[in-house]
Amino acid sequence: MFAATPEPPYYAVIFSSRRRAGDEGYEEMSARMVELAAQQPGFLGVESVRGSDGFGITVSYWSSGAAIAAWKANVEHLAAQKMGRQQWYEHYEIRIARVERAYQRRIGG
Amino acid sequence: MFAATPEPPYYAVIFSSRRRAGDEGYEEMSARMVELAAQQPGFLGVESVRGSDGFGITVSYWSSGAAIAAWKANVEHLAAQKMGRQQWYEHYEIRIARVERAYQRRIGG
Repeated sequence: MFAATPEPPYYAVIFSSRRRAGDEGYEEMSARMVELAAQQPGFLGVESVRGSDGFGITVSYWSSGAAIAAWKANVEHLAAQKMGRQQWYEHYEIRIARVERAYQRRIGG
Repeated sequence: MFAATPEPPYYAVIFSSRRRAGDEGYEEMSARMVELAAQQPGFLGVESVRGSDGFGITVSYWSSGAAIAAWKANVEHLAAQKMGRQQWYEHYEIRIARVERAYQRRIGG
């Protein structure tokens, strides 16, 4: 649920999207992409949530911009990106950011 | 829903959290914080989603690190942060990141 990232600096891909109605293979592909991303060099973790209104935010964390570029160009991921544009998403925004500072708090427990 | 941010560079605060059960004034304070943040110098927008399991991601966008520091030190926001630690959140992570590139796609429409 929470990504266990190292000390900054590292990189984040902030993917905000609104889904269309209907699954159309989305859930299966989404799970596969998380599995595949986790196998890529430089992958540090991912946090993801989607509301009942179809709006969602996924943030994946990477060791470098080069690791992000390699993931973007992954052949199986390219096919998923195409499906995303054609079928799954009504609108999306992708922001590539360099994480400079991080704080966490686990309360109680 | 989507934040209409300018061309990079700008800054993002990625706030990942898991809520405790029960409202305890959370919804009202959350709405007030969005309203208050939007009045701060350097605020560019916010995107937020929480799933039915209590895990949520809020990303706010700012023109500079100084704008983020000023928002963090806002007196009314400080009181909300304290309530967050005491009552609302089981765990949270805050990451401050510099957005270097951004892409968007509005499909159809």
